[in-house]
Amino acid sequence: MSEFTLIERLQTRTALERADVRVGIGDDAAVLAVPGDHELVVSTDTLVEGVHFPRGTAAFDIGWKALAVNLSDLAAMAATPAWVSLALTLPACDDAWLDGFAAGFAALAREHGVALIGGDTTRGPLTVTLTVHGFVPQGMAVRRSGARPGDVALTTGTLGDAAGGLALLGTKPSRAGERHPAWCEELLARLNRPTPRIAQGLALRGLASAAIDVSDGLVADLGHVCMASGVGAEVDLARLPASSALLGLFDEAERTALQLGGGDDYELCFTAAPEVAEGLIAELARLGGGVTRIGRIVEGRGVRVLDVDGREVVPPRRGYEHFA
Amino acid sequence: MSEFTLIERLQTRTALERADVRVGIGDDAAVLAVPGDHELVVSTDTLVEGVHFPRGTAAFDIGWKALAVNLSDLAAMAATPAWVSLALTLPACDDAWLDGFAAGFAALAREHGVALIGGDTTRGPLTVTLTVHGFVPQGMAVRRSGARPGDVALTTGTLGDAAGGLALLGTKPSRAGERHPAWCEELLARLNRPTPRIAQGLALRGLASAAIDVSDGLVADLGHVCMASGVGAEVDLARLPASSALLGLFDEAERTALQLGGGDDYELCFTAAPEVAEGLIAELARLGGGVTRIGRIVEGRGVRVLDVDGREVVPPRRGYEHFA
Repeated sequence: MSEFTLIERLQTRTALERADVRVGIGDDAAVLAVPGDHELVVSTDTLVEGVHFPRGTAAFDIGWKALAVNLSDLAAMAATPAWVSLALTLPACDDAWLDGFAAGFAALAREHGVALIGGDTTRGPLTVTLTVHGFVPQGMAVRRSGARPGDVALTTGTLGDAAGGLALLGTKPSRAGERHPAWCEELLARLNRPTPRIAQGLALRGLASAAIDVSDGLVADLGHVCMASGVGAEVDLARLPASSALLGLFDEAERTALQLGGGDDYELCFTAAPEVAEGLIAELARLGGGVTRIGRIVEGRGVRVLDVDGREVVPPRRGYEHFA
Repeated sequence: MSEFTLIERLQTRTALERADVRVGIGDDAAVLAVPGDHELVVSTDTLVEGVHFPRGTAAFDIGWKALAVNLSDLAAMAATPAWVSLALTLPACDDAWLDGFAAGFAALAREHGVALIGGDTTRGPLTVTLTVHGFVPQGMAVRRSGARPGDVALTTGTLGDAAGGLALLGTKPSRAGERHPAWCEELLARLNRPTPRIAQGLALRGLASAAIDVSDGLVADLGHVCMASGVGAEVDLARLPASSALLGLFDEAERTALQLGGGDDYELCFTAAPEVAEGLIAELARLGGGVTRIGRIVEGRGVRVLDVDGREVVPPRRGYEHFA
């Protein structure tokens, strides 16, 4: 199959036309119109089999997750998604696999109105690199560097679920006695089909002081915000949001480790001045998926985790880093 | 080394600041300003070790070539390069290799004023995916689809050199008796450090009717133009430009095969109405690197190669296609 046939098949599956795509797939490059008074927001993420998703992950889930992970970066900047290009490296041309991949990719692309604008297919070990493009009104991107002492620290959704799902796959031993099938399914869905918090990201515009998506783990990612902002943060362990599934399947020590250090949740961790935090919480609650105050920004540096008595807890692991 | 350290090291090597990069490396995504009245031009290409460059290729050359191949796609659209994001998959973190890669990448990035805006580093088999971004004034992109019967077909530079270089590496047997060191070096440089024809591409704006870069081989790539334009093409075998090195190192049959079917030259193959062709040739000649009329666009479909007596010649190979 030629490169165009493969990319065109994906484009056909997404069945999405955007007027701002002036030249799409089939030429040397795409030609695109960025709306006036907006800035372009661009992010690139690679997923490698056996590193970013377990071997044996369904093709549908790989297609979904590759796009979700990239859209999550746009969400963390408060950008509206628009276009994506795909570089797919495959060990062989497998029609059934490609159909599954295309279906997963297209399902999420349609949901967010994202058009596939081009890409490249090559032969080699399974690797998916996406570059996503979105827009923000000029100057409205929410950066990592705007957190200030006194700000509230918050997160959308629940934490540790994806890492819990990975633990259930046996990569990490589960300490849970009972394995309720619906709970297991819920955590595996969080691992394999994460939800990029696009609507939540848009709600942050002009209100949040800083934002990041939780991809490496809460402590690591909030640490990135602190580093970029030149501040410290305190996280209240007892406030961290947990799903019923995580509560049901893991004991407290393991759950805490997953919530603080588990990656791949793709929730938004963000900060806001106290005077805007209440309104922001109300708006995010309205969007669904939940929102929780988890701590505060302080003078200093680094992330300190505190127990209910205000004593510092040392997180058992600080998240995942490539080439660490 | 963390992802940011690696990407930042590359950014430091390019030592390039652009005012239109509002948020660069270090946040969830880059924020970029596209100039008013311009369209954005985006292309993605992946290079896999052992497929797109031979194992053992110097790190400098891999960094250079990965960017060159992508910039060549912008040249073929008549776009001005601006930004690039890099997804680098590496088997291990090797400082000397990274320094070499960064030096090659940065050398070409500086030459064309291209800023590195972000990327991702992952562990796995050596794979480089770049997404390049450039601009064209609205409606000025040169597409593949505009060739019309009666147009002249032209190419920049010389053809077959990169494939000749690959042949010298032993992937294909060389039939040449003598191997002059300077000639060999010249062809290997064409293979490993191709020159994207950016200035030539800009000269095509408003004048060329269609353009493509020669990455798969002349017959294959001109065939893409014919397919997109709904026309045919005739190529005069005797007119195909050849370097002294190619002429010196390969006999006629092998040289012809390399010129017609050899990929990786990254010259621009383009078409123009006869009344503008002369002026375009003069302008491209002024830019250096050469320009040659190689044939004409005709009614019909497909590319026919003609000898000096106008008889059709069947090209020995039609270029390289992944998953063919």
